[in-house]
Amino acid sequence: MASGTVMTAAELEDFLREVFPQAFGPTRPHHVVALGHRTATIRLDADDAHLRPGGTVSGPALMALSDVAVYAALLGQIGRVALAVTTNLSINFLRKPAPGPVFADARIIKLGKRLAVGDVALRGGGSEDLVAHCVATYSIPDKR
Amino acid sequence: MASGTVMTAAELEDFLREVFPQAFGPTRPHHVVALGHRTATIRLDADDAHLRPGGTVSGPALMALSDVAVYAALLGQIGRVALAVTTNLSINFLRKPAPGPVFADARIIKLGKRLAVGDVALRGGGSEDLVAHCVATYSIPDKR
Amino acid sequence: MASGTVMTAAELEDFLREVFPQAFGPTRPHHVVALGHRTATIRLDADDAHLRPGGTVSGPALMALSDVAVYAALLGQIGRVALAVTTNLSINFLRKPAPGPVFADARIIKLGKRLAVGDVALRGGGSEDLVAHCVATYSIPDKR
Amino acid sequence: MASGTVMTAAELEDFLREVFPQAFGPTRPHHVVALGHRTATIRLDADDAHLRPGGTVSGPALMALSDVAVYAALLGQIGRVALAVTTNLSINFLRKPAPGPVFADARIIKLGKRLAVGDVALRGGGSEDLVAHCVATYSIPDKR
Repeated sequence: MASGTVMTAAELEDFLREVFPQAFGPTRPHHVVALGHRTATIRLDADDAHLRPGGTVSGPALMALSDVAVYAALLGQIGRVALAVTTNLSINFLRKPAPGPVFADARIIKLGKRLAVGDVALRGGGSEDLVAHCVATYSIPDKR
Repeated sequence: MASGTVMTAAELEDFLREVFPQAFGPTRPHHVVALGHRTATIRLDADDAHLRPGGTVSGPALMALSDVAVYAALLGQIGRVALAVTTNLSINFLRKPAPGPVFADARIIKLGKRLAVGDVALRGGGSEDLVAHCVATYSIPDKR
Repeated sequence: MASGTVMTAAELEDFLREVFPQAFGPTRPHHVVALGHRTATIRLDADDAHLRPGGTVSGPALMALSDVAVYAALLGQIGRVALAVTTNLSINFLRKPAPGPVFADARIIKLGKRLAVGDVALRGGGSEDLVAHCVATYSIPDKR
Repeated sequence: MASGTVMTAAELEDFLREVFPQAFGPTRPHHVVALGHRTATIRLDADDAHLRPGGTVSGPALMALSDVAVYAALLGQIGRVALAVTTNLSINFLRKPAPGPVFADARIIKLGKRLAVGDVALRGGGSEDLVAHCVATYSIPDKR
């Protein structure tokens, strides 16, 4: 594929809708913004379940967003492997997010046979300042 | 207080219900099981929002549970400080949890003026094997 | 073996002397104190190369000590596998160590076919307070 | 200063030579390559003490290099604060480094009053592939 991925962003969104019906889909909060060579951007349109008093997106919502963004970037390289599982996730919360959508820019920094590692920059819509930064490791099942 | 905490488990649960109404309360999935000197145990009765196909508790649900367990153990030492915020959380996912409740045993390993660090062992109801292990750091606001 | 390990502490020390001659050996700073079922304790007798001004053991010396302690606990379970490699290490520095030896108590919390995870409590000789706390993941090579 | 730092690379190297005489200096293995706005690059010319059999730079040497690279980028912003201390360091080892120097490109992603967070990309001389990736948090002492 010209873009350096094994599926398009639309195909990825279809797959994520299937495996995470609570997260992806027309009325759901997560959306695939872009998919590139070893990269993916996911947008979270936080609803009440993701907000803290004051309109700030909660820590667990940012962790879930980070996790799925690395998974998305990985699927763009290895295809529909629902069984890839997170083995480690480490996140630093840097600033309180402003109200509005949060974008997660994920990048795969290692793609091995058994393990993949990605980092994620989380930012609000109107600023380059990072809201959070995350690194996650996925275990890739053996081919059968 | 005899128990080595500044509040009882019931007082803690009341406070958590106030600040996290979606997580704690009679019909909500999280419950304070125990509060001790620098320790807390929180139980997650996972509902559909926390489950993956197959009945397994999702990674984000385990991250949220870990985060609140360290926060609970910290509040037992420093009292109702809603503004303590997580600055770093690192989790290793070790085994697929069996269906049923998940318990998070948190322990504060450093209680400084500015930072507190806790670790958390997550386990299912019927086994000593860890489902996940987490370390989280909280920033404690200056006293006013 | 009665102790729940595949080698004795003396056999482990011999092997570590072979693969890390700069760290283990009669005149070297690291020593195997104990080896048990999924556990190991390593002692660091810090010399000038490990000290900061004021006599405090340096951060990198504590990281190296943590890494080798998890490796030791792992070797006690799987035998002489020099090729097991650290894939992730996360450490929290909690208190300035007092002058004198530092002990690293490692414990394997997951022993899978491909990955092992261990945590480590680092403490000085005369106190139960943790100097640092570390979690490390090792990748285990396929059997040939 | 035009470069967006409070000191030059040469001033930084002088200071690091003072506080880490074993690491920096004409005959020592670490060197300041560049210092920019919230960034620093440190080069490690590994000597025998940093090598594993086969000529590969050891994990502890990469951890020490990462730690000092974030510290350098931080000092470029806040000046000679020897007492800033690492509170957390998390590193992923991605590939075996080729023989030769290792470069650590550090970038401060949060510079708060009490905490600074930086990430570090480690790479060999002849490749863009990352050898390791690290995130470290520093605690900044109160001004007196």
